[in-house]
Amino acid sequence: MKIAVDAMGGDHAPDEIVRGALLYRASGGEADLVLVGREQELRRIIASSVPPGITIRNATDVVAMDEHPAQAVRNKPDSSISVCARLCRDGRADGWASAGNSGGVMAAALFIQGRIKGVERPALGSIVPTQEGFAYFLDVGANVDSKPEYMAQFAAMGAVYAREMLGRPEPRIALLSNGEEEGKGDERVRETTRLLKGSLAGFIGNVEPKDIYGARADVVVADGFVGNVAIKMAEATADFLFRTLREEIPKTLSGMLGGLLIRPGVRQIRDRIDWREFGGAPLLGIDGVAVVAHGRSDARAMKNAIRVTRDAIENQLVGKIRAEVGRA
Amino acid sequence: MKIAVDAMGGDHAPDEIVRGALLYRASGGEADLVLVGREQELRRIIASSVPPGITIRNATDVVAMDEHPAQAVRNKPDSSISVCARLCRDGRADGWASAGNSGGVMAAALFIQGRIKGVERPALGSIVPTQEGFAYFLDVGANVDSKPEYMAQFAAMGAVYAREMLGRPEPRIALLSNGEEEGKGDERVRETTRLLKGSLAGFIGNVEPKDIYGARADVVVADGFVGNVAIKMAEATADFLFRTLREEIPKTLSGMLGGLLIRPGVRQIRDRIDWREFGGAPLLGIDGVAVVAHGRSDARAMKNAIRVTRDAIENQLVGKIRAEVGRA
Repeated sequence: MKIAVDAMGGDHAPDEIVRGALLYRASGGEADLVLVGREQELRRIIASSVPPGITIRNATDVVAMDEHPAQAVRNKPDSSISVCARLCRDGRADGWASAGNSGGVMAAALFIQGRIKGVERPALGSIVPTQEGFAYFLDVGANVDSKPEYMAQFAAMGAVYAREMLGRPEPRIALLSNGEEEGKGDERVRETTRLLKGSLAGFIGNVEPKDIYGARADVVVADGFVGNVAIKMAEATADFLFRTLREEIPKTLSGMLGGLLIRPGVRQIRDRIDWREFGGAPLLGIDGVAVVAHGRSDARAMKNAIRVTRDAIENQLVGKIRAEVGRA
Repeated sequence: MKIAVDAMGGDHAPDEIVRGALLYRASGGEADLVLVGREQELRRIIASSVPPGITIRNATDVVAMDEHPAQAVRNKPDSSISVCARLCRDGRADGWASAGNSGGVMAAALFIQGRIKGVERPALGSIVPTQEGFAYFLDVGANVDSKPEYMAQFAAMGAVYAREMLGRPEPRIALLSNGEEEGKGDERVRETTRLLKGSLAGFIGNVEPKDIYGARADVVVADGFVGNVAIKMAEATADFLFRTLREEIPKTLSGMLGGLLIRPGVRQIRDRIDWREFGGAPLLGIDGVAVVAHGRSDARAMKNAIRVTRDAIENQLVGKIRAEVGRA
């Protein structure tokens, strides 16, 4: 198995990405890796000889984090992102992972690898923590203004993901809404409910945000605008609370002491809800494996994103989505 | 000044609502209060004689928290909610507050008090904590599928609210979006931007969730479905984190000790971000003052909701919205 890694993508590229690749191999990862990016820069980071199982593929261009995704991909055919997608299309890699411009990753996957026949729109998922472990939430930003038909496919693809990648043999699938009763929701949610009810096994209707944490569903589906705002709201709230606790509690002597005593416990909790543990998530609906990692990925996050890429290939995620959601 | 209080509305009605009214008066609140609800029940709670400044107005019916709002309001003309709205329409009260079925409160306000002429849809706001104090976020649930024209009015009404009720003479108004760059957002956000740009003083474009906590805007505007999901996501995330901390940290001896030491600091932070402090928020765009309090309101929350009602009346919020957003 061979995985292409976009070495130039992300806020901490290329150093942390290269370190993530080395970490993956050093921690027993079996897939061969192709680091894609400016060869001289990458060689300088690795310094000594390139370890076995890792090769470097030169790509002269880079899509910046703030570039217009579709334009950048069109105008830079030799960007690390486009080269990764082409390696997969041409069968020279089995999947790729990037912490770069996520719109760019999607554009490259879409233009170069293409959609699975019958899938209207690809969707991007994210792992969210719950009181019992985690749930899978999509779409967190691949699409805005999704039609109900797209939403219904997101739900069906999410079900495949939960089964094949998360070990949930009978996933419960829900729509994120402003109330759990049937009839709540905006027009999109209500129409999607009509499409899914009785047709998707495991569909349980609406959930509210508290139900996600309450582990009431394995897969939670939203339009990409709503999902992106919701997941960013969750991240921003957690950041705000931890920052406020860190600033306010040490203002008294007992608070300072107490803060030191609870530090290991807090760290454990932060780790449990840390996106770095989950690494990244494949774009569902692409005719190939393309994994989007967080733009702020460090070496640990990138190592985990490569692991997710490997799992998607190993579990034949794309073939299973094609069989269940695609059209021959 | 006279304020009608729906004594039967909310998860903890009537006891906590009545206690909230007593608390308001006992803590120096000057407005006269009319407790609206089942007279015998209310008299039994007050037990001794009704204190000066408080009267009771019998209303035989109650709209339950889970009833269909519009139907319940139509079918129960003598519900406490409808009686409150009628007292205001008929000039026998200057405003009202309810912790009851919020859809019912909106339906009663809309059917009985009516909209300000020229306002397309009423909107419901909420106070959200930020690193520098708080911001005003609307619509958090009065409408779904808002047209851009409605959104633009929400922004204009929010600006009036920030100026008249929150002491922000030149409020910064933003749209909640999935990215701060212009062009980000769904179709509704992009179209609303076109309507507001250059026409609403203080309009600063898009903000992301982290910018709300970063105090980048005084007023943040969203469609009611998106806003409701976003605010519920923030509440659910905070609840999840506090619960996880409370459960996990005492699992070690030092964690238990540390937890005790930081308890006062944590309580202070919880209080600062506690919705009970803010009590409630008026429905903007109604031709009269109608304040929606949280369904879980206890006496303290209800006292604060009555204070908000008083402020809205005192500051002539409705007249100012009429002048700036309405049409003669």
